[in-house]
Amino acid sequence: MPVDTIAVQGKHITLIDQTKLPTEVTYIPIHTIGEMWEAIKVLRVRGAPAIGIAAAYGLYLGIKDSPAATFDDFWNDVKTASDYLASSRPTAVNLFWALERVETCVQGHANLPIPELKERIFDEAALIHREDDDICRALGTVGAELIQDGDGLLTHCNAGGLATSKYGTALAPMFIAHEQGKNIHVFADETRPLLQGARLTAWELNEAGIPVTLICDNMAATVMRQGKVQAVIVGTDRTAANGDVANKIGTYGVAVLAKEHGIPFYVAAPMSSIDMSLSDGSQIPIEERDAQEITHGFGRQTAPDGVNVYNPAFDVTPHAYVTGLITEKGMVYPPFDVNLQKRLG
Amino acid sequence: MPVDTIAVQGKHITLIDQTKLPTEVTYIPIHTIGEMWEAIKVLRVRGAPAIGIAAAYGLYLGIKDSPAATFDDFWNDVKTASDYLASSRPTAVNLFWALERVETCVQGHANLPIPELKERIFDEAALIHREDDDICRALGTVGAELIQDGDGLLTHCNAGGLATSKYGTALAPMFIAHEQGKNIHVFADETRPLLQGARLTAWELNEAGIPVTLICDNMAATVMRQGKVQAVIVGTDRTAANGDVANKIGTYGVAVLAKEHGIPFYVAAPMSSIDMSLSDGSQIPIEERDAQEITHGFGRQTAPDGVNVYNPAFDVTPHAYVTGLITEKGMVYPPFDVNLQKRLG
Repeated sequence: MPVDTIAVQGKHITLIDQTKLPTEVTYIPIHTIGEMWEAIKVLRVRGAPAIGIAAAYGLYLGIKDSPAATFDDFWNDVKTASDYLASSRPTAVNLFWALERVETCVQGHANLPIPELKERIFDEAALIHREDDDICRALGTVGAELIQDGDGLLTHCNAGGLATSKYGTALAPMFIAHEQGKNIHVFADETRPLLQGARLTAWELNEAGIPVTLICDNMAATVMRQGKVQAVIVGTDRTAANGDVANKIGTYGVAVLAKEHGIPFYVAAPMSSIDMSLSDGSQIPIEERDAQEITHGFGRQTAPDGVNVYNPAFDVTPHAYVTGLITEKGMVYPPFDVNLQKRLG
Repeated sequence: MPVDTIAVQGKHITLIDQTKLPTEVTYIPIHTIGEMWEAIKVLRVRGAPAIGIAAAYGLYLGIKDSPAATFDDFWNDVKTASDYLASSRPTAVNLFWALERVETCVQGHANLPIPELKERIFDEAALIHREDDDICRALGTVGAELIQDGDGLLTHCNAGGLATSKYGTALAPMFIAHEQGKNIHVFADETRPLLQGARLTAWELNEAGIPVTLICDNMAATVMRQGKVQAVIVGTDRTAANGDVANKIGTYGVAVLAKEHGIPFYVAAPMSSIDMSLSDGSQIPIEERDAQEITHGFGRQTAPDGVNVYNPAFDVTPHAYVTGLITEKGMVYPPFDVNLQKRLG
């Protein structure tokens, strides 16, 4: 079983401190909205779905002891708590989405007594949590059909359970296949510069008892040529209407290598990541990040002073390299422009 | 101009301390055989040709003050010095080759007075040095013909001047093209796990005033797709008779990406690296190195305890991906089995 990023027992909330991974596995209890704000701020909890879930529970913690006796007073407290949490990571879309969803729930039950309204807020957070769980599990069940007993799989970066409620996206088919009793072996690209594959994916799979081999990104071609990889499964940050896929830098290279070796290349794409307003991947802006991530990555300088560096955070894999999109509603195959429209319709 | 790895003025020998690069550029004078032994041992000087040159000069330093009055006594001193140097890096083929060459030179001039014999030893070391210089320069001149003004080039690992007398192999065409006044721009793969591209290639090209951009290995596909790369030039540790190329891990993946993007893939292969006794690359043994290079590479642990790791030091690029071999005797194009035989004939 994958690890619970956010565990809830009764109304007690516990997070895995992702800043300590992979060398220390620390579970931190979160008792107050301030503790949740800090956990989101310093990336103890990270990954878009996980941040949304954390924020929703944080909002509950922020109002559970509110002394308000009227709805107007209570609403003020809700807004204060929500604005405070929103300030923890101002660019995280899921954070705002989750806070707004809880606010909408509160507005929709303005007639309830305050104590019951507080319960509704907790329930809404738990619903957001469970829905994410359901989506990842459904996606994983769809993707597990692609995996045969004995398969070698390769993934890049971390689209794992740590970023979501539990199963993740790209890793969900692996967790489910493992639960189904299939023997699988996963090659995890370390994923320079930030090593999410080494720090998070290798850790998650190890914890779940799934055999994993860590490789440097530049070794993927060799393990493919050796016949050790039967399928590639990666995540996506954003997928365009034509099936072009934006994901962590290096994904495109893996797709080219998979094609050359006749290996299917699957993208775990929850419906929420598919943006039909983008006709193709050229419209997806690519963030360039600080040179120091490459030149001073892990505690010491490994490149000359002042060297010119190119550090794009993402790349776009053209749809021609994508064998299929794994969604929670089923597989989507080419032609993606037609079949994504059908799936959404 | 590239940097002199080993500089000789009169009989004063100076090395760049490669263990300090890229953060410190330190030139160390070498006065004694003991200092040279230590420099080879701890990798202050590294790279097969550079080690051979250093050892030959080291042998001279070891016997220049020999009090021997007879050839037999002098020969004993030569052997003692040679055996001592041979113990510095017992697996470095070029080290033994250079020491044997100096010994053969001594044996061939047994009739000379000892002081003149000492001069012959220095001259033989200088000849080994100059020959390497000539080979690299000739190879670079051949390779520079492939480079057009304005070209973007991509290289992997460090087949640069630091490993040789000056020009290197894969970098030699770049140095020569730059000397010819061509504007070029080089993308240097950082080359995990040991980062020779970041530490050495980026430094060398910067020092020579050649525009260089450092990228992570997994970004090569993106810069190729952006049209920024007109040719790939890499080195080789060993090339088989059919043109299969063993080189630093990651080279094969770069070759696949180059093919997919219609970019020529050249291998700088001095004749000494071509092993006609190997019919194909499957006969080249691939060293597997310690997991810690990947899990603890940068001064701190970046992967979970006990994770399974695959860390091959080299890969083999099948000849079908090689556009041409750049040798000091001219280009060799496919069919390599036929044309390498011709070139050697």
